[in-house]
Amino acid sequence: MKIVNSQDLNEVMSLCERPSISTDQLKPIIEGIFKEVQSLGDAALKKYTHYFDKVDLDNLIVSEKEIDNAVSKVSDELKNAIQVAKSNIEKFHKSQQVAPVKITTSKGVNCWQESRAIEKVGIYIPGGTAPLFSTVLMLAVPAKIAGCKEVVMCTPPNSKGEINPVILYTANLCGITKIVKVGGAQAIAAMSLGTESVPKTFKIFGPGNQYVTAAKMMSQEYGSAIDMPAGPSELMLVADDSAVPSFVAADLLSQAEHGEDSQVICIASSLDLINNIQEQITSQLQQLPRKEIVASALENSRFICSDSFDFNLNVINEYAPEHLILCTNDNDKILPLIESAGSVFIGNYTPESAGDYASGTNHTLPTSAFAKTYSGVNLAAFQKQISFQEITKEGIQNLGATIELMAEAEQLEAHKNAVTLRLKSLQ
Amino acid sequence: MKIVNSQDLNEVMSLCERPSISTDQLKPIIEGIFKEVQSLGDAALKKYTHYFDKVDLDNLIVSEKEIDNAVSKVSDELKNAIQVAKSNIEKFHKSQQVAPVKITTSKGVNCWQESRAIEKVGIYIPGGTAPLFSTVLMLAVPAKIAGCKEVVMCTPPNSKGEINPVILYTANLCGITKIVKVGGAQAIAAMSLGTESVPKTFKIFGPGNQYVTAAKMMSQEYGSAIDMPAGPSELMLVADDSAVPSFVAADLLSQAEHGEDSQVICIASSLDLINNIQEQITSQLQQLPRKEIVASALENSRFICSDSFDFNLNVINEYAPEHLILCTNDNDKILPLIESAGSVFIGNYTPESAGDYASGTNHTLPTSAFAKTYSGVNLAAFQKQISFQEITKEGIQNLGATIELMAEAEQLEAHKNAVTLRLKSLQ
Repeated sequence: MKIVNSQDLNEVMSLCERPSISTDQLKPIIEGIFKEVQSLGDAALKKYTHYFDKVDLDNLIVSEKEIDNAVSKVSDELKNAIQVAKSNIEKFHKSQQVAPVKITTSKGVNCWQESRAIEKVGIYIPGGTAPLFSTVLMLAVPAKIAGCKEVVMCTPPNSKGEINPVILYTANLCGITKIVKVGGAQAIAAMSLGTESVPKTFKIFGPGNQYVTAAKMMSQEYGSAIDMPAGPSELMLVADDSAVPSFVAADLLSQAEHGEDSQVICIASSLDLINNIQEQITSQLQQLPRKEIVASALENSRFICSDSFDFNLNVINEYAPEHLILCTNDNDKILPLIESAGSVFIGNYTPESAGDYASGTNHTLPTSAFAKTYSGVNLAAFQKQISFQEITKEGIQNLGATIELMAEAEQLEAHKNAVTLRLKSLQ
Repeated sequence: MKIVNSQDLNEVMSLCERPSISTDQLKPIIEGIFKEVQSLGDAALKKYTHYFDKVDLDNLIVSEKEIDNAVSKVSDELKNAIQVAKSNIEKFHKSQQVAPVKITTSKGVNCWQESRAIEKVGIYIPGGTAPLFSTVLMLAVPAKIAGCKEVVMCTPPNSKGEINPVILYTANLCGITKIVKVGGAQAIAAMSLGTESVPKTFKIFGPGNQYVTAAKMMSQEYGSAIDMPAGPSELMLVADDSAVPSFVAADLLSQAEHGEDSQVICIASSLDLINNIQEQITSQLQQLPRKEIVASALENSRFICSDSFDFNLNVINEYAPEHLILCTNDNDKILPLIESAGSVFIGNYTPESAGDYASGTNHTLPTSAFAKTYSGVNLAAFQKQISFQEITKEGIQNLGATIELMAEAEQLEAHKNAVTLRLKSLQ
């Protein structure tokens, strides 16, 4: 990890630039997949599954028998851990429920808003060597709390046509109504457009490679909503002499193992501290099975040497990290000033791993500085708000002249007339 | 207005299909404008302003003198009406503030989420004959309550290079920090990319023609967020013998005057009621200055003759109207069952005009059935949520084994190690 030693915000930001991948060149490919799924439905999904996943499937939908089989394969110990995590995720997301607040804006004019679930949602879970069952929890649990009626999950099968049993176990535990063996851009197209097997959903959630990311962007052109734009995962960690170097090193490494394009930025208060952390990284790295991936990610990563509270705050808000770990004496002072971050981890005993799996917060978070604009996935992501208003006779008598004047000034006479008629009837 | 007399949901939905405009063919034009604004900045804005608005501007930014001038031109009566509306909109949007709820998911594991304003937002206000100052209120008021630091507004000048004084007055009243004389797709590109005069913003709000709509969709590819996808405005009204036909007719006409592509759907409980409403429409229509527009919109519009509570509910939720007016004896019974609508107006004395201008609710609402997925603009639209967690030594001792097991099952050893190291240090 290179060391940046500057107090110039622009210089530091440019030295911490994120590794970026443009998906522009993928657009024609993705567009072709969407058109094919639109016209051929399941047949297109089976064709791409043959081509990319090397398996021919008669039935894309996971059967009850397959689920029963998966349930029997997961150890009781892991089932128990998943149950603990699920319970914590439920508690945190339930705490986000908001009761309607009915207010009287003018006498006789009552307004409020209420949440309603998005009826049909789609969840994408990537394949690959590691089964990301934790992401199933993070997306299906709030969907169920919100009350989404249909929760569809797509995930690619292996070359035997199977889904990892822990993923199936978790999906079933969370009440997912339909599990589909299809991955990649074709899965996103299917959830956006609908096919014989895959219900059309209104909003699509979940991580994926650059094809999946490009397909989610394209699904918006077909009228679907998505959780958020996605990019490589990242962590910013702020440490001073209150931090434990071995913990800091472990947290940086845990972020770096996500992928070669991950980035970790460690703002440390002194060069001595940086040296201590660096030593720990070197020794811990040797023990890690994914050390090549980690080493590549560390190439994109930086130490920033700074003990200036204001400068560090500016770096945080300008970088807008997906994950932010604070191990400083000033945690309480900096927290209310943080404007942009996905999820914040406070103190020496709050590793990012806790939020990734089991503390209860969501791990689907905005990357690539999208934390300046987007929330991570939360209960509200599975809901929309409807506004309501009820006006009494007295209310329209109070407010009527105001509406008439404004409608007239906007040259919308019929808008005015809808009030005028009512006022006349009350004279 | 044609009458649909069927209880078959699919048939009714297909007879109520919305007038749709594809903006696909605009994409190359919009892409060209984005590229030009990206490379030439203000010069591109001035070029397009010359071309579309027929005026050459030295300075794109509205001056303080222009604002002072505008303030003096607006009548005190209208200023007062705008003030009343602003106050109601403030009350309703302030009522949406949510205090953080800190919860302990496991002993020693504390999680919460907090709102933060989106720092820089852009507001687009269309030009044309009618000055949409009400939309300035609807977007700038919640932006200020949220605490957005920079609120930029773009609106096209007339051929003399001027902005309507009521728009300027309202924008200034609402504390908009920068008012830019630029319209169309070039304005959206400017707020998405930034130019010498126009700050880059993170989220873009506001209505517009098909070029503006297509530009907002494209701005997402450049990393901007938008309020919601837009389509023609629409109203669904449910009436039974408790409804007043002249009020119903006035409400249908007020929606229809928005544009030729507007749609109104009136579900009425009997043919007699439909005839009475139709008579009122015919007589009221004669008085309206925009009667050609209204007449075109009524071509797209439908009566549905039905007095079935369940069927009407299904039609509402399947159509997912932007505006829904309920004038029935069953209002209280139907309200909790409404799943998808932008804004709901209850009873005979609650015209849509009230919400369009002054009751306090927002009038920027999801059209084209996007109410199935999107909320209208509200306070939350100008905020994002950050999650926080703080775990004590006891907390990580409680939850550590769960995290270790799950990380191991996902083959993420470094994630596990970040916990293991901490647990060891506490032994």
